[in-house]
Amino acid sequence: MDVNILGIVAGFLTSIAMIPQLIKVIKEKNVEDLSWMMILVLICGLSLWVWYGIIQNELPIILSNAFAVLVNVTLFICYLMFRKKS
Amino acid sequence: MDVNILGIVAGFLTSIAMIPQLIKVIKEKNVEDLSWMMILVLICGLSLWVWYGIIQNELPIILSNAFAVLVNVTLFICYLMFRKKS
Repeated sequence: MDVNILGIVAGFLTSIAMIPQLIKVIKEKNVEDLSWMMILVLICGLSLWVWYGIIQNELPIILSNAFAVLVNVTLFICYLMFRKKS
Repeated sequence: MDVNILGIVAGFLTSIAMIPQLIKVIKEKNVEDLSWMMILVLICGLSLWVWYGIIQNELPIILSNAFAVLVNVTLFICYLMFRKKS
């Protein structure tokens, strides 16, 4: 298999993985069982992957991680909106 | 910055990101707000990244994604154990 296609498919899957979670959160407005630390660490890590991809000049890494950063930033905003103040 | 160090830090962060989520799930035994589809898509995507890393011979990609596969498989097993049958 062409390694670029493999990278694009892999990147596509890890990019869209958080979308069902985001849809669930937006629908149910419930984030109690989600870990905000997971989302924050993920945003940091994914941003560094974008940087890595830029240096290595690997488009699948850049595109997929940049998209995943966007999804996770949205998820984090939803988390802040929907969390219950205790 | 050395690109390998960058990759290792990025991989380290995206690998450990799911650990706070896993700890939260094990502690609270509540997975209602989690999306099982997120976990499954993530496992597929991360496995392809391991394959991509093997072909490209990039150790940071192989190690970080292999570890993340393990964490997410554990999370999925917890999901199956703790979900409430309705």
